Amino acid sequence: VTAFASRWVEPPAGVAEHPVGGLAAGFRAAGVAAGIKPSGDPDLGLLACSEPDAVSAARFTSSGAPAAPVLLCRSRCRLDALGAVVVNSGNANAATGNRGLEDAARMQGAAAMAASVREDRVAVASTGVIGVPLPMDGMMKAILAARGELAPGGDRAFWRAIATTDKFEKLLSLDVELPAGTVRISAQAKGAGMIQPGFATMLCFVQTDAVLAAETAELLLGVCVKRSFERISVDGQLSTNDAVLLIASGASGVIVEQESDDELRFGEALDYALRRLALQIVRDGEGAARVARVHVHGGHDATIEAVARAIANSPLVKTALHGGDPNWGRIAQAVGAAVPGAGPLPFDIWIEGVQVCAAGVAVPHDTAALAAAVAGEEVEYVVGLPGEGAETEVFFSDLSHDYIRINAEYTT
Amino acid sequence: VTAFASRWVEPPAGVAEHPVGGLAAGFRAAGVAAGIKPSGDPDLGLLACSEPDAVSAARFTSSGAPAAPVLLCRSRCRLDALGAVVVNSGNANAATGNRGLEDAARMQGAAAMAASVREDRVAVASTGVIGVPLPMDGMMKAILAARGELAPGGDRAFWRAIATTDKFEKLLSLDVELPAGTVRISAQAKGAGMIQPGFATMLCFVQTDAVLAAETAELLLGVCVKRSFERISVDGQLSTNDAVLLIASGASGVIVEQESDDELRFGEALDYALRRLALQIVRDGEGAARVARVHVHGGHDATIEAVARAIANSPLVKTALHGGDPNWGRIAQAVGAAVPGAGPLPFDIWIEGVQVCAAGVAVPHDTAALAAAVAGEEVEYVVGLPGEGAETEVFFSDLSHDYIRINAEYTT
Repeated sequence: VTAFASRWVEPPAGVAEHPVGGLAAGFRAAGVAAGIKPSGDPDLGLLACSEPDAVSAARFTSSGAPAAPVLLCRSRCRLDALGAVVVNSGNANAATGNRGLEDAARMQGAAAMAASVREDRVAVASTGVIGVPLPMDGMMKAILAARGELAPGGDRAFWRAIATTDKFEKLLSLDVELPAGTVRISAQAKGAGMIQPGFATMLCFVQTDAVLAAETAELLLGVCVKRSFERISVDGQLSTNDAVLLIASGASGVIVEQESDDELRFGEALDYALRRLALQIVRDGEGAARVARVHVHGGHDATIEAVARAIANSPLVKTALHGGDPNWGRIAQAVGAAVPGAGPLPFDIWIEGVQVCAAGVAVPHDTAALAAAVAGEEVEYVVGLPGEGAETEVFFSDLSHDYIRINAEYTT
Repeated sequence: VTAFASRWVEPPAGVAEHPVGGLAAGFRAAGVAAGIKPSGDPDLGLLACSEPDAVSAARFTSSGAPAAPVLLCRSRCRLDALGAVVVNSGNANAATGNRGLEDAARMQGAAAMAASVREDRVAVASTGVIGVPLPMDGMMKAILAARGELAPGGDRAFWRAIATTDKFEKLLSLDVELPAGTVRISAQAKGAGMIQPGFATMLCFVQTDAVLAAETAELLLGVCVKRSFERISVDGQLSTNDAVLLIASGASGVIVEQESDDELRFGEALDYALRRLALQIVRDGEGAARVARVHVHGGHDATIEAVARAIANSPLVKTALHGGDPNWGRIAQAVGAAVPGAGPLPFDIWIEGVQVCAAGVAVPHDTAALAAAVAGEEVEYVVGLPGEGAETEVFFSDLSHDYIRINAEYTT
């Protein structure tokens, strides 16, 4: 499991990295090659829960052009009682029409057999190129092959099979001490580009062996997604395929009652897990060398959200971040663009704790010290707008030559 | 004057490039070095109209953080009766507070003396780095020096003095045959990055020797800006300093009556001039190698506008354009992001006349022929959404390594 450290995401008390890793109890996973990726790398993942009464919760992309697997999950799955997931990478199965829906249904059927669960309890997910039919023969064989590979320690192989342009692993396995007992949370995420969540913009699969009510899973996943995958941006682009799934097997026997201290602690651990994976996605933003957090406070929710997004998605701010350039004029420009009006708006800007702008006017500061402060891997911007009571944050990556290289050459 | 040709912007009948160039009658201009640019290049431009009854119209940025010269123009200028313009490049005079307003007022006062017009008839504009005070001593001397350089053929020197990262000249001098007689339109524009007009995102100064009522100037400039600088994007970023000014000297004696055939013809010529300059700004988009036009049609104005902007500002679409990659999946992704919903939205996509997506589903096509078709300098995308009666277009540039290089190193 990848070592992780950030000043922005700290593990809460009672949450520890599992020394060996692996999935939460009651789960097995596998990753195999179905021949979708020309490289021959693994591109088909299967996750199965052995407990018949598993509960689940799910969130999907808000895109108006959702991929076939998203449409299938919404219309033909018991999203509160999932027991298996089948995922392919290398092909999004998007803009593929009825054939795409049929292919997704065939994946669901084969995975139901392979995982020994009912079809409507199998979620389907895809990621990759848009507008190309899936090579179904290879995939059906791969799903059968994955059955034989299913293992409690299969999370790493599963992760490899769902990754595309990801440069490093994004998976975790946490021991969580609750008053009622110890449970495990395991999770695997992929995503590096086409990342700005309407709520999420990638694939993330979370497992726990805690005993949760379906309502609890739904509530906690909703809250934690809002604080994690909804708060990141690599390139401001919403994918057709985003999905986040939480499945609770109950295999630990540790019951997380609603509105209990156990629920609070479990929620904190889930929050940590998803924020950590979200930040890892930003760090792995295509070509990213530096990551930033912008924190915006003021009097109006809609305004601070617009300002935070305008800064996080500004190619001028992102190239300055890449260049290690404390060019706060670009922050000012983004603020002005997000809050149109005859102005001038009296906004404040701090970079790494140094105030550079007060009430819309430049503040003299030690530019050499500031340049040194933004040379690190993490940079923090704070923007103050008039009023009080509202605050938000967005984590974002820089914009680099490698983003251009990766994306100018993606299909050709 | 730069040779210009595009399939998207054709000169109307009766409009011809002036063989020698130069400003419309009644105008003189100059460009000198004030010492703002470290290179020593010209960075102060002065434009003066000799006719006491000149009329004018103006448009400014919609940014909530407008620069001092924009605030000054709005509050202390007769925008319908301008007789001079003073412009500096290399420094935006933005986020400079009261000192910035005083500096802009001093520029206005000095230019009024230099051009022999009243202060409230002098417009002030700036472009460059945000948050740095202007070097006023050098500027006051430069304004006086510019007075001695004012010339009817000074448009090229004036252009050089207003340019920053521009790679080529953007100026024109047109003879326009009207039923009432021949008039001239001259114009100078700068702009390459931080370009997405709320209405305009750069500086553009337009002169004519036609006799216009102030209401006519206002009406025609408003319509033509909507069809030109409002329809372009380099990087989706709104500047703090954008300004477009039209001044009519009346020196030709050719009267353009309201609601006449002359007004119609003059409007067509102004429309051509501004669309041509707008397209040149896109072509000069920082690092741009290719330009594209996206045309969107459908049933709802707000939806087609959102889709057109989402495509024009998508870094994924822009990198694919840069790579000469007909990756229409990125167009589909941008459409889906702009029109959230449980979908699927039945949209159509054509690239260079080849349909690649129908009702949201991939259409088989000759991919080699399409790749060849998008290898040129101009690429055209057409997107059809449900419904009829609404259409729009946006011109945009690609996203290249040079954009990163230029903007990662802008202040450091």
